[in-house]
Amino acid sequence: MKKQFMVIGLGRFGSSLTKTLIANGHEVLAVDKDEHAVQEMAAVATHALQADCTDEAVLRELGASNFTHAIVSIGEDLQSSILTTLLLKELNIPTVIAKAKNDMHGRVLKKVGADQIVYPERDMGTRLANQISSNNLIDYIELSPEHNLVELKAPPSMDGLSLKKLNIRANYGCTIMAIKKEQDINVSPKAEDEIHTGDILLIIGSNDEIRHLEKDYERKR
Amino acid sequence: MKKQFMVIGLGRFGSSLTKTLIANGHEVLAVDKDEHAVQEMAAVATHALQADCTDEAVLRELGASNFTHAIVSIGEDLQSSILTTLLLKELNIPTVIAKAKNDMHGRVLKKVGADQIVYPERDMGTRLANQISSNNLIDYIELSPEHNLVELKAPPSMDGLSLKKLNIRANYGCTIMAIKKEQDINVSPKAEDEIHTGDILLIIGSNDEIRHLEKDYERKR
Amino acid sequence: MKKQFMVIGLGRFGSSLTKTLIANGHEVLAVDKDEHAVQEMAAVATHALQADCTDEAVLRELGASNFTHAIVSIGEDLQSSILTTLLLKELNIPTVIAKAKNDMHGRVLKKVGADQIVYPERDMGTRLANQISSNNLIDYIELSPEHNLVELKAPPSMDGLSLKKLNIRANYGCTIMAIKKEQDINVSPKAEDEIHTGDILLIIGSNDEIRHLEKDYERKR
Amino acid sequence: MKKQFMVIGLGRFGSSLTKTLIANGHEVLAVDKDEHAVQEMAAVATHALQADCTDEAVLRELGASNFTHAIVSIGEDLQSSILTTLLLKELNIPTVIAKAKNDMHGRVLKKVGADQIVYPERDMGTRLANQISSNNLIDYIELSPEHNLVELKAPPSMDGLSLKKLNIRANYGCTIMAIKKEQDINVSPKAEDEIHTGDILLIIGSNDEIRHLEKDYERKR
Amino acid sequence: MKKQFMVIGLGRFGSSLTKTLIANGHEVLAVDKDEHAVQEMAAVATHALQADCTDEAVLRELGASNFTHAIVSIGEDLQSSILTTLLLKELNIPTVIAKAKNDMHGRVLKKVGADQIVYPERDMGTRLANQISSNNLIDYIELSPEHNLVELKAPPSMDGLSLKKLNIRANYGCTIMAIKKEQDINVSPKAEDEIHTGDILLIIGSNDEIRHLEKDYERKR
Amino acid sequence: MKKQFMVIGLGRFGSSLTKTLIANGHEVLAVDKDEHAVQEMAAVATHALQADCTDEAVLRELGASNFTHAIVSIGEDLQSSILTTLLLKELNIPTVIAKAKNDMHGRVLKKVGADQIVYPERDMGTRLANQISSNNLIDYIELSPEHNLVELKAPPSMDGLSLKKLNIRANYGCTIMAIKKEQDINVSPKAEDEIHTGDILLIIGSNDEIRHLEKDYERKR
Amino acid sequence: MKKQFMVIGLGRFGSSLTKTLIANGHEVLAVDKDEHAVQEMAAVATHALQADCTDEAVLRELGASNFTHAIVSIGEDLQSSILTTLLLKELNIPTVIAKAKNDMHGRVLKKVGADQIVYPERDMGTRLANQISSNNLIDYIELSPEHNLVELKAPPSMDGLSLKKLNIRANYGCTIMAIKKEQDINVSPKAEDEIHTGDILLIIGSNDEIRHLEKDYERKR
Amino acid sequence: MKKQFMVIGLGRFGSSLTKTLIANGHEVLAVDKDEHAVQEMAAVATHALQADCTDEAVLRELGASNFTHAIVSIGEDLQSSILTTLLLKELNIPTVIAKAKNDMHGRVLKKVGADQIVYPERDMGTRLANQISSNNLIDYIELSPEHNLVELKAPPSMDGLSLKKLNIRANYGCTIMAIKKEQDINVSPKAEDEIHTGDILLIIGSNDEIRHLEKDYERKR
Repeated sequence: MKKQFMVIGLGRFGSSLTKTLIANGHEVLAVDKDEHAVQEMAAVATHALQADCTDEAVLRELGASNFTHAIVSIGEDLQSSILTTLLLKELNIPTVIAKAKNDMHGRVLKKVGADQIVYPERDMGTRLANQISSNNLIDYIELSPEHNLVELKAPPSMDGLSLKKLNIRANYGCTIMAIKKEQDINVSPKAEDEIHTGDILLIIGSNDEIRHLEKDYERKR
Repeated sequence: MKKQFMVIGLGRFGSSLTKTLIANGHEVLAVDKDEHAVQEMAAVATHALQADCTDEAVLRELGASNFTHAIVSIGEDLQSSILTTLLLKELNIPTVIAKAKNDMHGRVLKKVGADQIVYPERDMGTRLANQISSNNLIDYIELSPEHNLVELKAPPSMDGLSLKKLNIRANYGCTIMAIKKEQDINVSPKAEDEIHTGDILLIIGSNDEIRHLEKDYERKR
Repeated sequence: MKKQFMVIGLGRFGSSLTKTLIANGHEVLAVDKDEHAVQEMAAVATHALQADCTDEAVLRELGASNFTHAIVSIGEDLQSSILTTLLLKELNIPTVIAKAKNDMHGRVLKKVGADQIVYPERDMGTRLANQISSNNLIDYIELSPEHNLVELKAPPSMDGLSLKKLNIRANYGCTIMAIKKEQDINVSPKAEDEIHTGDILLIIGSNDEIRHLEKDYERKR
Repeated sequence: MKKQFMVIGLGRFGSSLTKTLIANGHEVLAVDKDEHAVQEMAAVATHALQADCTDEAVLRELGASNFTHAIVSIGEDLQSSILTTLLLKELNIPTVIAKAKNDMHGRVLKKVGADQIVYPERDMGTRLANQISSNNLIDYIELSPEHNLVELKAPPSMDGLSLKKLNIRANYGCTIMAIKKEQDINVSPKAEDEIHTGDILLIIGSNDEIRHLEKDYERKR
Repeated sequence: MKKQFMVIGLGRFGSSLTKTLIANGHEVLAVDKDEHAVQEMAAVATHALQADCTDEAVLRELGASNFTHAIVSIGEDLQSSILTTLLLKELNIPTVIAKAKNDMHGRVLKKVGADQIVYPERDMGTRLANQISSNNLIDYIELSPEHNLVELKAPPSMDGLSLKKLNIRANYGCTIMAIKKEQDINVSPKAEDEIHTGDILLIIGSNDEIRHLEKDYERKR
Repeated sequence: MKKQFMVIGLGRFGSSLTKTLIANGHEVLAVDKDEHAVQEMAAVATHALQADCTDEAVLRELGASNFTHAIVSIGEDLQSSILTTLLLKELNIPTVIAKAKNDMHGRVLKKVGADQIVYPERDMGTRLANQISSNNLIDYIELSPEHNLVELKAPPSMDGLSLKKLNIRANYGCTIMAIKKEQDINVSPKAEDEIHTGDILLIIGSNDEIRHLEKDYERKR
Repeated sequence: MKKQFMVIGLGRFGSSLTKTLIANGHEVLAVDKDEHAVQEMAAVATHALQADCTDEAVLRELGASNFTHAIVSIGEDLQSSILTTLLLKELNIPTVIAKAKNDMHGRVLKKVGADQIVYPERDMGTRLANQISSNNLIDYIELSPEHNLVELKAPPSMDGLSLKKLNIRANYGCTIMAIKKEQDINVSPKAEDEIHTGDILLIIGSNDEIRHLEKDYERKR
Repeated sequence: MKKQFMVIGLGRFGSSLTKTLIANGHEVLAVDKDEHAVQEMAAVATHALQADCTDEAVLRELGASNFTHAIVSIGEDLQSSILTTLLLKELNIPTVIAKAKNDMHGRVLKKVGADQIVYPERDMGTRLANQISSNNLIDYIELSPEHNLVELKAPPSMDGLSLKKLNIRANYGCTIMAIKKEQDINVSPKAEDEIHTGDILLIIGSNDEIRHLEKDYERKR
């Protein structure tokens, strides 16, 4: 079945979501209670409409039941998020994702049927904290509570050393998966490949292993 | 030099940031204009204070110039973000990171000295859009505008096939870097290793290569 | 197990509820966010406290989990009703009754766990309509969608007639169960008992039977 | 004279009242100051109009003096309720019923001419309190301050017992008038008729007699 | 019985009323909901208190039932005027005078028991209109809808004429009762007494007679 | 010159003023900033217009300089009263009368040119106080700070007494000018004329004389 | 008599005024209704007090009548400015200067007694316009509507020319009074003195003469 | 290049600025967010438009990049001032002048690119303070922090004295540059020229010299 997206609430989160979905080639119906927010999205979204989605009749008119995904990205108004989520699930939309402000609101949204809850502000706070905790971390994927895949900038203390010399796996337990040098990405780095300051290393390992590695090379500076 | 963090603005973003920095072992001074927000953070942060950071005298009293990093995570009030950012840079804090609502606000914050701008709602909108665009994508790192490292759930159509059989590199140009099976992560997968539905694949490649791969195996379902 | 009542929200509905529960000999903890409302109840309720019941910590402190019944009679604020109901059920209170404004709010409150929903304004509207629709109806119990037990004032056209003469059962299908004459209630009326204008008749029957009876004696006037 | 109803104020109480009057076959003119409230009622009411009923000229234009009943169900605004009630009585409407918030407001409305005062929130609070005070009470009619007709669920301790065996009248003074078993209502129960758990008993008696009966069979559980 | 006054509402009307009553030698209890208004009156009134007179308990505490007169001079708030008036009459104060904004409010206040209604703004508007309608009218008493006693400034056209010469009664039907010349008042003016420009004439007559007189001497100017 | 009136501000005072001026046969231009107030006056006033009279251009357009009298009866807004009064005097209107809230506002209005200041609420407070201070006083004209002309209801203690018997002038110094008996007014009462309870006496005298008279006949009751 | 200043209203204008008066060696009493504004001035002003200067009693307590100058620099609130100005003049302060928003407000303030009116925003708008209209004008004094004394930057086209060569008086009618070269000011420039680019010329003349001069040397560039 | 002015914000400062620029012969585009402010300027400005200048697209449409000067005279709203200033500089307008409320706002506006900052209220406060500090000072130009050119009214103590007699330069160090007598300005005063009370003297000198001179002649009075 082809995916059909409905985004309700066109604030910063909702409009950014809408734009990326469309950039990814999807059809999106973008809806907001506020005429102004709709107009800003009209040039971008497949369909942009001003409507109050806490009203069942309105949702039916929009043909809500034909969508495969609905994202309830209403800003501060918990009540509207709740009513909209409830109605969307009663209309049998397979996947309803709701934005929540905090854990308790998330629990309520789950209860009224939301399939997935997202916490943009909270999650980005966590991401930024992890990035600035390190001097070299650029981005990361949390593979499990214990393991991460991290994108690290090579510190000066590694400059000119080969992978063999560094011997990361033996010394720290984690693994260098790839090395990015400007435009090139070396996805199967060899023992004799040298690292230079500013190269980007993709490393898989446990949090402890990676932190250990980072600290050691920090100290050598 | 040891990092010293100051977080100004304890909304959802700022408080989540503060909690993660502390969990990562850092000392954090958490500040907000609102007494209530401060009290909620008091149990967690090293120091939590009620103060108006648009007032230079107040910042001096807080010893702002001793911090290595300040994060201006004030919510909606652009004026306060601007004044606070300006003052922090005048006090020579090396790294000042400011949260912005949109691109234009980001430009102003850069002008008054912010070293880095973050857009939590916008960026999380983009991330969610990318995840729900695909049926299998769990998370990703954008290595360059052209290349991504993605974490994909193996679709049923790959079930039981070895890497050799799949021959991803030859067919699509992208590379499987690692395979995660429940708790284990296989960081140097071999040609005879088999993939099973639900395994997590870490793949590096261009956006087109990865999308191509995804679509093909989708179709085979 | 002895019943323990907690009433949250001391508006007109909540305070009337509290007073009657206490008059019936129960212990009641009466809670409201508003200090003023609490003081008015303090002279009456076993315990009356000012507290915000959308805060889990507050509910724990009040010992909420020890109560057998909680009634969420918060006025207009749906969000608070929802959060409070959710928390009360998470604290395992066996019976949580929530006041709702309309059907949709009732559905949300059910979803977050309410065991029973009450609609005071709507239900009293219905009751008043039924009473003023008839000239004689004083009160009624809806036994089933089809059958009612009604309390009717005897119209002048019945004055001086015996039950035998009236022969209600044969003529209309419904049954006179009891006759109230000022202070006395005759619970096993006999065929020769006479009815006088202003007596109160307790009649069981279908809606149609009772309406038919009423109209006939109206006409005879 | 045929009844003609005018309902002023279309909140939850007023709209529920209007719907039931219409369902009972009456003609109703529904009026509210708020256009939105009127539109919601337009599909249901015989006539629904937006008008300010504190203005005598408006009431005359609506032909108010032709109605037999007017119900002033204006929400919170005592002043409007008072002015409207006064004007309606000056226009000689035989029956004016006004909704009041509390006893004092009720007194004022009486003084300006209201024939009957209703207190929906207060009365429903009382009803709910009586129902939840008992484990078996479903509904009741207050026949006099001392006597009630109650609808009780038969408790397990009565299961399989005949009326003879129970001998309610001799033991407690109150009388079982009828027994409802699912769809059937037995309006002249005989001594040998057996009661089963979940049957609905219609009982007339004094409050003390009924409470005594209830407690005894509770205890036997 | 000695008069005892209670003035409720200390706006411009109420405070002016209070001051004059005290200047006339009476005891007055002055009450207002607003602390500030009370303080301004404290130096003047026998007793000045801050209290909410829509609360029966408060009125009892003030010993309201001992007063012979209560004036309800509450400003714009009709609801408070109504409740206060009702309570004062229920406490059996013999004379309750209420200030009203318009005729309809006056009717409501009458219904809840006010013995007299005053309309300061409306009545002063009428007085000023009458004064500026004439060039000579200083003040007047309305004896009946048809007859007035007026205080007129003698126009220049009367200068030096004797009462005999003027012969007002014969020519116009109205009567000069008295002539005020600076400090002296001539209460039994004789035929030969002369009038001079600027004398004040006290004239009794019908409206038409007086207007006729005024116009004639205006014309002669 | 014929009088031409302009009334600015159509509250209770201004509209009552307008109505009486028109009833007295004058032409009146009635103006208010508020459309609603204008419409209520439109049926009555010669001309009623919605306009902002703090704007000089507007006043010119209204032809303000042609009026002989302007009354500034703007409610609470001192600033508008001041600006309007200033402009009207600059346009050379001969008589500008301004309504003031208190003495200080009156002084400002005088300074910017008002020819006369009126204080409706304050003056009516004084009048009512004087009336209720006496048991018999109906109305009065203040002839000088020392002398009044009063309209008194004859108390029962005077019933049946002739003027000769009462001998008011000799005993009290004041003079009975006229006696009103229902419809008739006796403007030259003779010594043998008798007074009956409820007759209205018009009396001229000093405050002390009148108070003395009143008290004596009160005591005789 | 020694000058004694009172500044009422401590906004940007009033506080700047206060600071300069103190810097010039005067004693100043600085007053504002707002506590916060007073505290900011407390460190600078001789006396700074929180007080409401529209209250006569307050002004007396402050000893207002002892001051030689009062400046009413209240921001937007015309009513307060008017009342304060009136009271200050009634207290016989010799010089009262009032800040006005526009011409009409200025007229009112004059009427209630202000000796001088200032219009900061309007006047600074004019000054800035004059400065940016010219390329060389730095500052100016308006000697009469026709004559100015201007401070001009010498344009490059005058570089190296002597006063004799320029012959300004003969060619344009205006006079170079002085030449400022960095720190030195030549107050009696001689014919042979040379001008260099960037010198500041003090020139007296009519507006036309100066504009003519400016334009000519602009053109020669 | 011909100057082209754009004035954004048409409050008292901006509208006064616009009017003077036009009076000086320039073309001006006057813009404000508020329709009302624009209409008032429409009769005066070359072009007056309602537009929101915090929107880049709007500025482009207005052809902002063609102007040589833009003045951001937005009232209280710092955020709008900042965004507008930033956008104007990004559009490469050579000179952007921004009005600031205080020093800190001035710093921010500088950072986002403003070429010049003006502080109307603050600067006029300073000017007024300097004028009222002296008894004779009419106006002044600050030539350097140490030197002023002042316009002084000649005090009575100088009356009839020649420049020779006064010998200002020798006694005080400052120089009389010109003497204004009513309409005439004497730009090269000679030793025998006499000064009379009320003549205007243009004097250049240090602050101390001028103050010394003023005080001496004050004392001689």
